[in-house]
Amino acid sequence: MEKVVDLRRRQVLLGAAAAATAVGTVSADALAQAAKPKPLPKYVEWKYLDSVIVHSSNTIETKRAAFGTSVIVPNDILFVRNNLPPPPETIAYDPDAWEVSIQGVANPRKFTLGELKRMGVETVASVLQCSGNGRGFFKHKASGTQWKVGAAGCVIWSGLPVATVVKELGGVAGGMTFMTGTGGEKIPPGVEPKKVMVERSVPMRALDTAILAWELNGEPLAVAHGGPLRLVIPGYYGVNNVKYLAQLAFTAKETDASIQSSGYRIRDIGKKGAPSQPSMWEMNVKSWINHPSGDGDSVSSGMVQINGVAFAGVNRVTRVEVSLDGGKSWKDAKFVGPDLGPTGWRQFVLPVKLDAGSYALMSRATDEKGNTQPPERVENERGYGHNGWRDHGVRLNVA
Amino acid sequence: MEKVVDLRRRQVLLGAAAAATAVGTVSADALAQAAKPKPLPKYVEWKYLDSVIVHSSNTIETKRAAFGTSVIVPNDILFVRNNLPPPPETIAYDPDAWEVSIQGVANPRKFTLGELKRMGVETVASVLQCSGNGRGFFKHKASGTQWKVGAAGCVIWSGLPVATVVKELGGVAGGMTFMTGTGGEKIPPGVEPKKVMVERSVPMRALDTAILAWELNGEPLAVAHGGPLRLVIPGYYGVNNVKYLAQLAFTAKETDASIQSSGYRIRDIGKKGAPSQPSMWEMNVKSWINHPSGDGDSVSSGMVQINGVAFAGVNRVTRVEVSLDGGKSWKDAKFVGPDLGPTGWRQFVLPVKLDAGSYALMSRATDEKGNTQPPERVENERGYGHNGWRDHGVRLNVA
Repeated sequence: MEKVVDLRRRQVLLGAAAAATAVGTVSADALAQAAKPKPLPKYVEWKYLDSVIVHSSNTIETKRAAFGTSVIVPNDILFVRNNLPPPPETIAYDPDAWEVSIQGVANPRKFTLGELKRMGVETVASVLQCSGNGRGFFKHKASGTQWKVGAAGCVIWSGLPVATVVKELGGVAGGMTFMTGTGGEKIPPGVEPKKVMVERSVPMRALDTAILAWELNGEPLAVAHGGPLRLVIPGYYGVNNVKYLAQLAFTAKETDASIQSSGYRIRDIGKKGAPSQPSMWEMNVKSWINHPSGDGDSVSSGMVQINGVAFAGVNRVTRVEVSLDGGKSWKDAKFVGPDLGPTGWRQFVLPVKLDAGSYALMSRATDEKGNTQPPERVENERGYGHNGWRDHGVRLNVA
Repeated sequence: MEKVVDLRRRQVLLGAAAAATAVGTVSADALAQAAKPKPLPKYVEWKYLDSVIVHSSNTIETKRAAFGTSVIVPNDILFVRNNLPPPPETIAYDPDAWEVSIQGVANPRKFTLGELKRMGVETVASVLQCSGNGRGFFKHKASGTQWKVGAAGCVIWSGLPVATVVKELGGVAGGMTFMTGTGGEKIPPGVEPKKVMVERSVPMRALDTAILAWELNGEPLAVAHGGPLRLVIPGYYGVNNVKYLAQLAFTAKETDASIQSSGYRIRDIGKKGAPSQPSMWEMNVKSWINHPSGDGDSVSSGMVQINGVAFAGVNRVTRVEVSLDGGKSWKDAKFVGPDLGPTGWRQFVLPVKLDAGSYALMSRATDEKGNTQPPERVENERGYGHNGWRDHGVRLNVA
């Protein structure tokens, strides 16, 4: 039906396609495609090239057809987005020696990761999603990576609740209203640090659920994904989940780093970013269909399992409807598979019997607060937070 | 604390250790160890060698210290156990063309995997565990791989419920009481097929939950783990989860293949296997501590997070107790992380403050039916089904 990824080997697709041709199962088209993809950057060479789109060395997207139906997105096909080049792999050689400074508490101090691991452990599933996921559907040439649906994944994190550390250090200092994480990336020489550093502030309400994470999907957190230590704020857009966490501070104000003050702000097309505009914090309600994946292949008439994923930031997703006619009419899909908690995503399936024809498949999610995806994208300068259902639909031709 | 696996790269440990030495963080001991491990067989060369123990080309164990705390065990560190050498990788080049014959129903027929995928999709978490997991703790030299705790993993499967296929084919034929799966491995020439073939029968009650699985942890099922198509029976020992499923038949009797009639039977030491003995079907209640991993390293005094996993076959695990004194006294541990359903495993944690000394750490699980792990192993010829808590304990030295 769709180009599902078949080969679970770390080879590049070209090698696989050549091998497959030897047994006569791959088309000339697949071979031509195989020659095309950009190679994986060295620090993520362990990812499956055939399941991702390499936009640049710091922006790698999961292909829609590569998403499975098993709730989680495994590390080797999970998207990558770095705001600065990642630190060298050597920082992961002795992860327990990694240091993080906790500030803005009654008794500020530094901890090694080894010390944090002895203080507690919690595990939480959350959807990691870039603020610009879906930017590729905007028509005004929004600056940034042209992600479609694959700058997102539901993953499982392990780490220490931030609340545990804060309690240990005597609580948050008076007058603090933000939690501010600072990444440990090296600032390129000759650049004003505030212009490029990864330092993000989130409202204090995030303290209840945030964790200091050292494990992703059952494996030590790779440098590509922020290891040895990452601040994870379940239900918040990716940028707030600061990688290589060097400092966690409770602060009276939001940081004045550009990534906070002018970056990741929702504003009208043509406008500059400013602190007065909404920041990319909690994610909105969203869903999309992964299978069929809309790659233009046609299927024969009969039963089709239309399936995809739905989530709603910090809220539980409660309903997904699917349309076969571009949104004119809707049917309720059913959820399948384990429920990983409010900040994970749910898989939905609608089994349908289809006659020959062309179908515009759409999905529309609703959360426990009654929020529903809008039909259209909300136009904004940088193409953030796209959850309009129409753009996320796929076309299916039934022969 | 324990030798947690730090490097998330597909290199062999030797390369990693050499690189780490260059930055001065790896001991001579680690380097010496690095030279030792058996290499990964070609068909699983994509696994993390530093996280597994290669017993043989068909038996590969997850190291205790490599288990994370994020509920699932990822594909690249999951154990492998094949009763026959796996088929060539070419069978996965066009997975949708794989054929399975359904027999013992009103209207028997063959389906391609491509056809099955259009009939439905369900997702279920289950613990995959070899019947001989824990055999390495027996003292009578039980024949077979000397597994400790790592021939097990909690994973997420996607596939089609067997019940859906059966309904489509008019239901199970009259008089059938077993569900019998046949693997598609090639029988070596000159060998009596029944002596080596992988054909297993399970009682009909398994029909309600069994699935025909094509996806593991969000990726197409690798040949190493039974792809393109595997029969998955949640809560049952690994051997019943027939790989490369070529036929699924509802039968009046159990198969007379040796793997069923004399293999995987619980009997006294010295006895031969026979159909009258209990077969390795539903798994019993079991738990073990993963961290500390008991590798003999000592830790400094203070807080320690004792954590591990617990499961109970088809029953939900409801309680885990932890002992610091070899089973003389017990404390209740708490469950952490998502609950993936009754056939997944739960993670448990007990935070304790430890003074200097030597501790014999044990864990003991209880399920919803009131079954509790026994203290000792139940001696049996092949070392199957070991769930005695004493042998599974670990030693921790606190300095």
